[in-house]
Amino acid sequence: MASSGKGDQTQGAVRVNGFNDVPKPFLIGVGGGTASGKSTVCSKIMTELGQNEIDQKQKQVVIISQESFYYPLSSTDEPRASRGQYNFDHPSAVDDELILRTLSDLKCGKAVKIPEYDFVTHSRKPDAWRTVYPADVILFEGILVFYFKDIRELFDMKLFVDTDADTRLSRRVVRDIEERGRDLDQILHQYTSLVKPAFEEFCLPTKKYADVIIPRGADNTVAIGLIVQHIEDLLKPNSNLCAKRLRHNSDSLVSRPH
Amino acid sequence: MASSGKGDQTQGAVRVNGFNDVPKPFLIGVGGGTASGKSTVCSKIMTELGQNEIDQKQKQVVIISQESFYYPLSSTDEPRASRGQYNFDHPSAVDDELILRTLSDLKCGKAVKIPEYDFVTHSRKPDAWRTVYPADVILFEGILVFYFKDIRELFDMKLFVDTDADTRLSRRVVRDIEERGRDLDQILHQYTSLVKPAFEEFCLPTKKYADVIIPRGADNTVAIGLIVQHIEDLLKPNSNLCAKRLRHNSDSLVSRPH
Amino acid sequence: MASSGKGDQTQGAVRVNGFNDVPKPFLIGVGGGTASGKSTVCSKIMTELGQNEIDQKQKQVVIISQESFYYPLSSTDEPRASRGQYNFDHPSAVDDELILRTLSDLKCGKAVKIPEYDFVTHSRKPDAWRTVYPADVILFEGILVFYFKDIRELFDMKLFVDTDADTRLSRRVVRDIEERGRDLDQILHQYTSLVKPAFEEFCLPTKKYADVIIPRGADNTVAIGLIVQHIEDLLKPNSNLCAKRLRHNSDSLVSRPH
Amino acid sequence: MASSGKGDQTQGAVRVNGFNDVPKPFLIGVGGGTASGKSTVCSKIMTELGQNEIDQKQKQVVIISQESFYYPLSSTDEPRASRGQYNFDHPSAVDDELILRTLSDLKCGKAVKIPEYDFVTHSRKPDAWRTVYPADVILFEGILVFYFKDIRELFDMKLFVDTDADTRLSRRVVRDIEERGRDLDQILHQYTSLVKPAFEEFCLPTKKYADVIIPRGADNTVAIGLIVQHIEDLLKPNSNLCAKRLRHNSDSLVSRPH
Repeated sequence: MASSGKGDQTQGAVRVNGFNDVPKPFLIGVGGGTASGKSTVCSKIMTELGQNEIDQKQKQVVIISQESFYYPLSSTDEPRASRGQYNFDHPSAVDDELILRTLSDLKCGKAVKIPEYDFVTHSRKPDAWRTVYPADVILFEGILVFYFKDIRELFDMKLFVDTDADTRLSRRVVRDIEERGRDLDQILHQYTSLVKPAFEEFCLPTKKYADVIIPRGADNTVAIGLIVQHIEDLLKPNSNLCAKRLRHNSDSLVSRPH
Repeated sequence: MASSGKGDQTQGAVRVNGFNDVPKPFLIGVGGGTASGKSTVCSKIMTELGQNEIDQKQKQVVIISQESFYYPLSSTDEPRASRGQYNFDHPSAVDDELILRTLSDLKCGKAVKIPEYDFVTHSRKPDAWRTVYPADVILFEGILVFYFKDIRELFDMKLFVDTDADTRLSRRVVRDIEERGRDLDQILHQYTSLVKPAFEEFCLPTKKYADVIIPRGADNTVAIGLIVQHIEDLLKPNSNLCAKRLRHNSDSLVSRPH
Repeated sequence: MASSGKGDQTQGAVRVNGFNDVPKPFLIGVGGGTASGKSTVCSKIMTELGQNEIDQKQKQVVIISQESFYYPLSSTDEPRASRGQYNFDHPSAVDDELILRTLSDLKCGKAVKIPEYDFVTHSRKPDAWRTVYPADVILFEGILVFYFKDIRELFDMKLFVDTDADTRLSRRVVRDIEERGRDLDQILHQYTSLVKPAFEEFCLPTKKYADVIIPRGADNTVAIGLIVQHIEDLLKPNSNLCAKRLRHNSDSLVSRPH
Repeated sequence: MASSGKGDQTQGAVRVNGFNDVPKPFLIGVGGGTASGKSTVCSKIMTELGQNEIDQKQKQVVIISQESFYYPLSSTDEPRASRGQYNFDHPSAVDDELILRTLSDLKCGKAVKIPEYDFVTHSRKPDAWRTVYPADVILFEGILVFYFKDIRELFDMKLFVDTDADTRLSRRVVRDIEERGRDLDQILHQYTSLVKPAFEEFCLPTKKYADVIIPRGADNTVAIGLIVQHIEDLLKPNSNLCAKRLRHNSDSLVSRPH
């Protein structure tokens, strides 16, 4: 049976009206500046939960990244992006309507299709839209996840990974050189002219919406452990989410592909 | 059986070497500036856990306040304190050795005696030392709980309640007028000359040691819910703390009073 | 003769094209949060310069406050203002177009008329518009002086008086009780619900535009002395502003009332 | 004749008791984190004042760097320094007694000898002690100039160059690669493990002592112009420093080399 009462606020399994066996997933927003450790925190959570090896359709926890929702670039913007001059950190670069629709659908128990952004062509890979099923817990991470009010209000819990600006720059420099083979001068110029001003104008002011601030990022094993355990509780059969265990044998969920 | 492995770090039930049925309590430090909401957060946690109605000896969660450990004042300092000129926010006002001994004893499974500070006479009430038994979870709260290195290293989890300075002053003014019948001018003068400088010099720099930062304090129901649930897990019979359930029927714990 | 060259940027006496004997005044913006000490800094400057005793038309330095430019309130807003619920700290409360026109006119050497705001009726006092003549140095102070881009770009020098939030609240409480006879509860409520959020959203982000940050406000005698001396230099006959000395005997300035 | 009265505080020419023609130099401290722009601000000031071309003995303005006062390293510390593991940002690396004696002597009108630090051998170059004569204005710059109380109290004006941590790191990376031929990994490791923690513990807390905060550093032409003009005033023959003009023809100053 579905639970009720004060516990719901942090335990998430609230039935959608009229859909008795479709509990709402618990939606966690994970914000923070570039290289703050947002996605590392998310993947450490997945690893500790042993969710990485689980089949896509059976996954109880999924990570969705704001990066999937960049707008495909026009032929004017594309060359600017290739030169590191297009501002991916600005809210206008993000398809917030698609994010809102996607997360809303997931909260209603619908499967969704999520684009994969191609950072080479700066477009959505045509055949790469991945289907995400409404898991018990959804982690949505990105620099602007708390910027758009409608999206912000969907989250059951808002985490802000708070890492000092110089530490973030240091990590970004190393990552961009190692993983993306980019040039130090270009990295620093892009950071100074685009990334930093956008962080200060659009991301940092959203820290005030956070429920929990996680300092230092991925090194913070205590905070990660706290979140992991919280999610484990949400996933337990005897938790408020028990109804969901039945769902996987049910045909009642039309948006499920089987 | 006691557990082992990586889970221990955030779950606390680590057996003391050689004392098979004396698990270490899980010790949570709760720091933050004056009127940040530290003690309200702690008492909300107690209420949600239903620990308030439980008999002292059977309590699984206890709160200890740094305020209990102020030094008794000398005849020189006492009149200054009465005029609001003694600096209770300075580390030198706190008997950190007694704190260290008290928390260490609790971690070893020993019952301890904690003084009650009398803010009228600025001394420890002679007959009011309260016995605290080594509960499963101990919350230790105060402005300087992360200041002393030896004490800081005892905590299994460090929370910092982070509330803006002006919000804290606003709350303190209201509280000091209502609860302590004090005069606005004196409150503001004491805040400006003693409380604020000590916060900036001794409390704020300890924020960097926090594992989790709780913004806004007692209004932050999501964060409080997260901590409550974490403690509930620690208290569950099938958690790592299961051995502790037996303890209350055991005679093996010499420091227990029965 | 008018000067030229790099010195102009900080010395201000740049002739307006075509008006050979009408130098542009040097316009200093003074921003900062409520009770940061903006207006005290300005009046200390006036006192040290001995400008208080000088006749209005002959004044070489004038202070203009953003407070003069509040919109007259509608019959809907007026009762809210009387209850402390109208947000005077929001940009929408400020007639920025009138500010822009006023400061632009002064920079062009025109005399202007400045409304006086009546905080009882929340309207502009009909007969109280004060004429301000284009002095050599104009100090424009307020919480939002750097918020509006067009206005911000008029300033030759931007000062931000940076005082801690709790210090500012402490001062505001004292001032509002003493000068305005208001009630502590109402002061704190208005501060928390309107003043503080508006400061954080609209004023604090403009600190980045400041050329010079003056910590602590009016107590900072060294910084005030630095600005005073700078203005004294601007006023010296042998400075770049020497042409202005002639102006007062000239009829060429049509907007002058004589 | 030397002046007196309230103006002295910011104008500096206060006669030393009993030495009628030896005015005290005006001592400006310039603090701020690594790569904040302290020394660039100082050298821009020198350039704008035209002091760079002036003979050492006749210079009216001199810059002294805290870097000259590093302790020579022991044979134990030297190899650590070569590996980037010695903490030059820690107060214990700085010979604060020599700084104090040097600045005190200058304030008394005595010429002083200042060591030159050799960053290759980590010792003071034996034959490179430079003689500095008591100029009218002395700029002393470094990360810890406001850390030591006795030194801090010598300054007539305290400037803090306040540049964001990520901007400073970005500049330091570029500078250390270009000027010192160092390796990116080593630069980032040293910054993270030594430079950043020392800044936060020893430099940043001294910002509260500043009279004037200069945001952005060397790009801030308005603030630099303000300081330049202030110094120009201090140097003017008709300023309070007029007595000093005589000094250069005088034999009364025993510590002068002629």
